[in-house]
Amino acid sequence: MDRLNIGVIGTGLIGRLHAQHLSSRIPAARLAAICDTNPVAAAECLAVCNVEALPVFEDYQKVLSDPAIEAVAICTPGEIHGEMIEAAAAAGKHIFCEKPIDYDLPRADRALAAVERAGVKLQIGFNRRFDANFRHVKEAISAGAIGRPHTLHIVSRDPVQDEAEPPADLFLDTTIHDLDMARFLTGSEVTTIYAIGGHMGVPHSADAPDTAVITLRFANGVIATIENSRRSVYGYDQRLEAFGSEGAISVGNESPHQTIVSNRDGVLSSLPLAFFRERYADSYVAEMSAFARCVIEDSKPLVTGMGGRTALVLALAARRACLEERSIAL
Amino acid sequence: MDRLNIGVIGTGLIGRLHAQHLSSRIPAARLAAICDTNPVAAAECLAVCNVEALPVFEDYQKVLSDPAIEAVAICTPGEIHGEMIEAAAAAGKHIFCEKPIDYDLPRADRALAAVERAGVKLQIGFNRRFDANFRHVKEAISAGAIGRPHTLHIVSRDPVQDEAEPPADLFLDTTIHDLDMARFLTGSEVTTIYAIGGHMGVPHSADAPDTAVITLRFANGVIATIENSRRSVYGYDQRLEAFGSEGAISVGNESPHQTIVSNRDGVLSSLPLAFFRERYADSYVAEMSAFARCVIEDSKPLVTGMGGRTALVLALAARRACLEERSIAL
Amino acid sequence: MDRLNIGVIGTGLIGRLHAQHLSSRIPAARLAAICDTNPVAAAECLAVCNVEALPVFEDYQKVLSDPAIEAVAICTPGEIHGEMIEAAAAAGKHIFCEKPIDYDLPRADRALAAVERAGVKLQIGFNRRFDANFRHVKEAISAGAIGRPHTLHIVSRDPVQDEAEPPADLFLDTTIHDLDMARFLTGSEVTTIYAIGGHMGVPHSADAPDTAVITLRFANGVIATIENSRRSVYGYDQRLEAFGSEGAISVGNESPHQTIVSNRDGVLSSLPLAFFRERYADSYVAEMSAFARCVIEDSKPLVTGMGGRTALVLALAARRACLEERSIAL
Amino acid sequence: MDRLNIGVIGTGLIGRLHAQHLSSRIPAARLAAICDTNPVAAAECLAVCNVEALPVFEDYQKVLSDPAIEAVAICTPGEIHGEMIEAAAAAGKHIFCEKPIDYDLPRADRALAAVERAGVKLQIGFNRRFDANFRHVKEAISAGAIGRPHTLHIVSRDPVQDEAEPPADLFLDTTIHDLDMARFLTGSEVTTIYAIGGHMGVPHSADAPDTAVITLRFANGVIATIENSRRSVYGYDQRLEAFGSEGAISVGNESPHQTIVSNRDGVLSSLPLAFFRERYADSYVAEMSAFARCVIEDSKPLVTGMGGRTALVLALAARRACLEERSIAL
Repeated sequence: MDRLNIGVIGTGLIGRLHAQHLSSRIPAARLAAICDTNPVAAAECLAVCNVEALPVFEDYQKVLSDPAIEAVAICTPGEIHGEMIEAAAAAGKHIFCEKPIDYDLPRADRALAAVERAGVKLQIGFNRRFDANFRHVKEAISAGAIGRPHTLHIVSRDPVQDEAEPPADLFLDTTIHDLDMARFLTGSEVTTIYAIGGHMGVPHSADAPDTAVITLRFANGVIATIENSRRSVYGYDQRLEAFGSEGAISVGNESPHQTIVSNRDGVLSSLPLAFFRERYADSYVAEMSAFARCVIEDSKPLVTGMGGRTALVLALAARRACLEERSIAL
Repeated sequence: MDRLNIGVIGTGLIGRLHAQHLSSRIPAARLAAICDTNPVAAAECLAVCNVEALPVFEDYQKVLSDPAIEAVAICTPGEIHGEMIEAAAAAGKHIFCEKPIDYDLPRADRALAAVERAGVKLQIGFNRRFDANFRHVKEAISAGAIGRPHTLHIVSRDPVQDEAEPPADLFLDTTIHDLDMARFLTGSEVTTIYAIGGHMGVPHSADAPDTAVITLRFANGVIATIENSRRSVYGYDQRLEAFGSEGAISVGNESPHQTIVSNRDGVLSSLPLAFFRERYADSYVAEMSAFARCVIEDSKPLVTGMGGRTALVLALAARRACLEERSIAL
Repeated sequence: MDRLNIGVIGTGLIGRLHAQHLSSRIPAARLAAICDTNPVAAAECLAVCNVEALPVFEDYQKVLSDPAIEAVAICTPGEIHGEMIEAAAAAGKHIFCEKPIDYDLPRADRALAAVERAGVKLQIGFNRRFDANFRHVKEAISAGAIGRPHTLHIVSRDPVQDEAEPPADLFLDTTIHDLDMARFLTGSEVTTIYAIGGHMGVPHSADAPDTAVITLRFANGVIATIENSRRSVYGYDQRLEAFGSEGAISVGNESPHQTIVSNRDGVLSSLPLAFFRERYADSYVAEMSAFARCVIEDSKPLVTGMGGRTALVLALAARRACLEERSIAL
Repeated sequence: MDRLNIGVIGTGLIGRLHAQHLSSRIPAARLAAICDTNPVAAAECLAVCNVEALPVFEDYQKVLSDPAIEAVAICTPGEIHGEMIEAAAAAGKHIFCEKPIDYDLPRADRALAAVERAGVKLQIGFNRRFDANFRHVKEAISAGAIGRPHTLHIVSRDPVQDEAEPPADLFLDTTIHDLDMARFLTGSEVTTIYAIGGHMGVPHSADAPDTAVITLRFANGVIATIENSRRSVYGYDQRLEAFGSEGAISVGNESPHQTIVSNRDGVLSSLPLAFFRERYADSYVAEMSAFARCVIEDSKPLVTGMGGRTALVLALAARRACLEERSIAL
């Protein structure tokens, strides 16, 4: 097996992205099928892939029963992730699953048990771990660049989106990435979580939080804060800073160009890359390559199913802490 | 009265600084006397002032009874601030007092009552309000540059100091500046405070917190975080970022020069200005000028006694929240 | 014709790069053959391309006589560019040719005449015109962002290379890119050229210039300077600044990450991307896509054969000006 | 003599600045008199100085004959500098003279001869040598931070000024500063000079150059370029970069604050400090302090009369090179 045959299930924004990458940019894998209950979406996805011909399915069970397909990339809505992981594992397929592992902890646990029984690989889609910036920070911290870490501050703001659509849950959809990043960078587990938030946008029927500040204490003493917003008018803001006994390391935004204009009004630099597809383009390729390689080489994924479960536990705790305005011990 | 005659009480680091400024850089004031229980300190202070001759006292009551002195700058240790304010007010002197207003709330209240009775001016030494950077942020926010503010993040780290000396209280000495800044920039009052911290430095008999993260909710909805440390090996780190419905505004560190070296090891910029005397040099001149002008013009100080009291209340609450690891409603 | 079949002639560093791109990243083209007099180089090139099978030739005349091949990418040494363009044009192939068009003006002229006679497309490989940064500058200047341009300063430094290999000519190999960029950005033609340079590296048998400063006056009044070096220890340095009646616009280096470390030694940022393959990766894809599209759509290339000739004329003049230490009128 | 008594001759912009500094910020000196043929200007100058009383003269010979005055600061128009230096030296006064030493070389030479005869100190006002940024660059180069210097690029742009006033000569007024800086930083002498320039502003009766690029070759092999303009709409632009065998060092502009606003339009930083009084404020204090100290300590000025003469020779050569569009050997 020199290239892993992967079927993509779900061809929304993120599924289409993975299908495109599998069709041209991942030498260790091959796009083996795409699947969507909506044939129009599947056709649109096919059109942007660099392939001559490809099996297209409406029913994901067909993907699971196809012996030519060795692995699946689950890119469907979060509430059916657990169920699909369970079924894919039972069918003996290796699994890449987008985050979150599920919105529901018992379903996530059933999925993990099925994976364990089947002995297949499971990698959760925390793509930011594969970003060149955050990898560099991880390596620098491991190499002692800032000594013993004391604090970590993550700024993670989404651009303002169309208010018409009911937004996904801030904690389970956005914060969960940052919680995983905090675990990744500190190399430790959260012992206490505090959150405070609110709906800062225009009044909305749902009034779900669109802004939150989460404070975490880790077992190794690090104190981390995460600042989330969905109301950034200047685009996608993805920065962080870790501070320790020997210094600090920070990550700034990536921009489409390094052009600076000076005129009567000031000195103007470029806005950051617009949103996740632009900012994390390379990290999506890298995570899928890593998944294919860990199946081929029978190694452990960088982001495990248990890692996905822990991030879910933290996100659920953050949501409760915010609702109840108190700190929660884990 | 074209120049206000000011006597400086206490000639430690900060008293000496104010005395120097009053002797040469503040057209609206005149250094009228210096006072210290330690005559050596007073002599050292006199030596660095740009004056030919000057009354020097050991007993501050002598300053208060000198009719040529119209105002005092109290630069003694914090635990006697309240008592000195009270005495100075009773003597009819206008008062500039270094922060905090006192470490003890009842003493602060007696001081404020005395000031009220005497009808004298009282300005507390929150010098950062007079810094060009933070003033610019305040003006920009007021002018709508970021729309309605949602969040504020203040990073305020002191350089590592000699461990031998027992450090002042983190919350009452350092955080109190940032609490005042948060009030200044949000233009609102704190309703909830949460704090988490620890002693990150080498084990120490005192083990008082040298690191803390404080989270504030303001009446106007703004969520603010303050990240304090006394363990910065790269020097004095004084930054902040405010984020709102129309954008974000941030303040970076000031450096001694804008020189950048590129060599095999990377691209190297200057460390920030070393500590408060360098970083806030101009703000100390500006606050003292403003104090002199508000006496001369009979206007209200930018930093009032009540403002000093509120900052003290918040610092005490932050200290308790940190100790008890919970959020406190105010 | 929905995808242009292109044969790559010459599989050195740059030929391999184009072959790789044609095999996976350029939807408007298809890698149709590779050709190298050295079969080992050709085999190595094939190994890094994302193709199952591919015709491989040793003799480039075989490429020209293959009716399935519609266009060629000439990536051989510069002194045979002219001859190959001539032959390819005679064979009715569209031509993408790496810079320079040739090292010799009469050969370049014969090549251009052949292209004219055959009516095929010819695009010269000034890839930097396709870089996101420089495109943005061009568009900004055209949109009036800096008003009427007054001056332009280009810094273009190559990393220190192995001294053992005889280096290519500084003016014909490196400066020629910058001369083309200056023409591109000013939208005007050079009337006077002055150059001064020297061999700054360790003494060397050749002692050819490794450093030069070129000054250009353009017909529209703009004064441009180009600062070239082949002795940069901190890597590839590619910046520029244009200044005009309404402001200035500058391009900084691109870096592999936006990470900054602050420690006792200073504030350390990343070095720029290492060399042309990293820095201009996307521009190579963009120029080849543009070439394929201009053949398919029968439109004019952004970088014409005449543009390639003009850059050669300027590079030759710069070399002579440097040798004779004087300014030359064109 | 613990404080040097200095009389300021000429109370225009720059004379007033020096008088102010001498009255309050220079411990080694004392403002002993001011002098201006225009009594209104002298009175305005007196009003902004921090002094109670001060001799004010109309005739500068009165300053020279006052035995209480030990030194003079000549701040009159450039064409009478030489004559005044000559007279002051004859009167035995130490001399600080604003740049240029004169506009006329024979007058400069007579002045230097008089200084030599009288054995007094003469320091020319190349204040930028005392700027923290450029001093840091000088020290870094001397310490080997960039190895052997290869090239130097100076950007020196003045803000757009009122067109009504006939501007001073670009080369003798502006470029002369940069020529001195180039000598200071390379520590070598110019062997060849080339200049190209033009009038880029709105057509003007004078049509004197407002823009120029000067190229210098130094005896030690360094190639330097100076880019001058008087048409900067974004303010005073004062940057440079030196490049050498071990790296590069650059100086960016200084700004009034480090505030950055991100909104829909981009990421906006502050304009540089407005003009020379703001940008070089501290350097004016430092140069006058240094002058006073070198008289008191009988040491050699950092900027000598011969240095002032050499800069004049270079500025005159640059002007001729620009006019004749050729390079000139020195």
